[in-house]
Amino acid sequence: MPHSDTLELSLELLKQPSVTPSDFDCQTIMANRLKNIGFNVESMRFADVDNLWARRGKESPVFCFAGHTDVVPTGASDAWHSAPFDPQIREGKLYGRGSADMKTALAAMVVATERFVEKYPNHRGSIAYLITSDEEGPAINGTVKVIETLEARQEKIDWCLVGEPSSTNKLGDIIKNGRRGSLNGILTVQGKQGHVAYPHLAKNPIHLASTAIDDLCKEVWDHGNEYFPATSFQISNIQAGTGATNVIPDILTVTFNFRFSTEVTVEQLKSRVKAILDQYDLNYNITWNLSGLPFLTPVGDLVEAAQQAIVQVTGSETTLSTSGGTSDGRFIAPTGAQVIELGVLNATIHQINEHVNVDDLEPLAKIYEQTLVNLLA
Amino acid sequence: MPHSDTLELSLELLKQPSVTPSDFDCQTIMANRLKNIGFNVESMRFADVDNLWARRGKESPVFCFAGHTDVVPTGASDAWHSAPFDPQIREGKLYGRGSADMKTALAAMVVATERFVEKYPNHRGSIAYLITSDEEGPAINGTVKVIETLEARQEKIDWCLVGEPSSTNKLGDIIKNGRRGSLNGILTVQGKQGHVAYPHLAKNPIHLASTAIDDLCKEVWDHGNEYFPATSFQISNIQAGTGATNVIPDILTVTFNFRFSTEVTVEQLKSRVKAILDQYDLNYNITWNLSGLPFLTPVGDLVEAAQQAIVQVTGSETTLSTSGGTSDGRFIAPTGAQVIELGVLNATIHQINEHVNVDDLEPLAKIYEQTLVNLLA
Ligand SMILES: [Zn+2]
Ligand SMILES: [Zn+2]
Repeated sequence: MPHSDTLELSLELLKQPSVTPSDFDCQTIMANRLKNIGFNVESMRFADVDNLWARRGKESPVFCFAGHTDVVPTGASDAWHSAPFDPQIREGKLYGRGSADMKTALAAMVVATERFVEKYPNHRGSIAYLITSDEEGPAINGTVKVIETLEARQEKIDWCLVGEPSSTNKLGDIIKNGRRGSLNGILTVQGKQGHVAYPHLAKNPIHLASTAIDDLCKEVWDHGNEYFPATSFQISNIQAGTGATNVIPDILTVTFNFRFSTEVTVEQLKSRVKAILDQYDLNYNITWNLSGLPFLTPVGDLVEAAQQAIVQVTGSETTLSTSGGTSDGRFIAPTGAQVIELGVLNATIHQINEHVNVDDLEPLAKIYEQTLVNLLA
Repeated sequence: MPHSDTLELSLELLKQPSVTPSDFDCQTIMANRLKNIGFNVESMRFADVDNLWARRGKESPVFCFAGHTDVVPTGASDAWHSAPFDPQIREGKLYGRGSADMKTALAAMVVATERFVEKYPNHRGSIAYLITSDEEGPAINGTVKVIETLEARQEKIDWCLVGEPSSTNKLGDIIKNGRRGSLNGILTVQGKQGHVAYPHLAKNPIHLASTAIDDLCKEVWDHGNEYFPATSFQISNIQAGTGATNVIPDILTVTFNFRFSTEVTVEQLKSRVKAILDQYDLNYNITWNLSGLPFLTPVGDLVEAAQQAIVQVTGSETTLSTSGGTSDGRFIAPTGAQVIELGVLNATIHQINEHVNVDDLEPLAKIYEQTLVNLLA
């Protein structure tokens, strides 16, 4: 069977080892395709981050595809059944870092746009692309800066479809119409170094903090609401020790993240963490970093166009959800744009042997194309 | 003031940069002195480790001085006020790597033996030396191998005085008459990597294990006994996480150490750790490494001879203790020998600017000599 257009472009993008903040050649590949069909393309590089803003048309309304070309690190390469940047198809699945998050969606956007433009060269409004290479990283020199640039020149996005992998069991089963907030913390607990044979002369920060850490893991932060699942707390990193087996460490470092609903505020989360830690006799410090407040796009033009497109292509209904990770949607929504996320299945994102169903690629391109038809034809 | 005999020989040994496993010329210096007073000297080299076995006399009982010529690395040399292998006296203190652990004790042994042999050329029993150059290292080709060699030819030690720095506040205030056992474990808890925003698709090994780790930290393993302090459990290292703040780690690694009394066995400790972990639904593995069983020399000939010698020389009483780190005594005690450790103050061992009180050197030689008198005169 010959490769579909979407699969071909996916393979090309997946071969680029574009670990954050590197774009490698992904945006050039996309930009060349978009230039061919009449897009005005702007590269916006901020510090070490490549960003792409492309637009076809000068009128409103502006429909924008958004996404990222960067991928998370591969982990141990030899744990992959095939090399992470050598995309391979096995038993109907396309393996490679970024296959789910989110290079196949980028390919589907481009193919969908090419087909739409061919059929509707004089579509109403404008089609735009907002692509960054630091979505998986600090997210400082990516979408935020592009949005600042657009706002400064009063260029506005009305509808934004972010190609993040929103589907859960079946392509198109979920559209994300909002996201939880994300709050990071770095907790350090100070102890006193010493020899394991003389624990009374040392203070082991792991032992001092073990109950507090267990309490934090067990805490129920809220129960969510109609739009949002319950707030979740996850420790991503924990570290203490010199490497020597006979030395009690002097400091414990714990990095954690909240994904939070609109049922709690940032200040409440901070004070509840402190209240748990203050139950114990700890010498601690927390550095907080708010990476996004919760946002929501209620049912309207964009949600309806996408839901209808999914029914037209797959015959199935779609559920709205606000669960899952943050996305750059959090930077676009505050401009007043309607923002949804719609992409492939997210089951293996950020994992070893990340993959997508090959059979989902063309249908995704068709859903994107049909969404364009529903809004701009 | 002229240098004492013990100080002179200490200076000679401290000038040898004998970082484990190197002996440099220490054992040759000692062997020459011992040959002069009628010792039969054997060099026993195993792999890269020099060992010395020397004996004066053919009869039982055998009193053995034991110790090591190797020293731990110096750390940053320029952090020392004087170069670590250029011994210097300042304000009554002798500075140099190995000054406390344990070259001054080696010097005191030799000087004590020379004086004793001069007064008692026909002493009863035998005097022996068991000196290694890998006590601070892997301890594979040192005392263990010498003991194997002696056992194979049925050569037996009755009383062994290890010159490790046992004193805490004042020369001779502590004799170690045993040591706790030391058992290391490396616990790995397997989870499943994933994105912090999708905790239901991942398994966070930190969260899965947090209660078990808290339980391990809180467990009372025993209450010790007359000779041993309570068994202590210390986590020396804990690690999980890729460094990224949005990735749930796939594995948690916890390195821990037991210093254990004779109230628990190795098998009991292992099964109790497993029982705690098995209360939780964990996919875990533990690699165990027993670095030494506890041993004890109850009050008897050797302890009494040394305690009496300390009173005779310093006028002070001595406390028996089994606390602190492991020593090569753990390899000698299982042969049935009585084993004690008695040496200078241990406050600065393994540290930068390691030092001893110059005024403690001659009294230590006198204590060793008087111990010989009490046992073999
Ligand atoms: Zn993504
Ligand atoms: Zn030592």
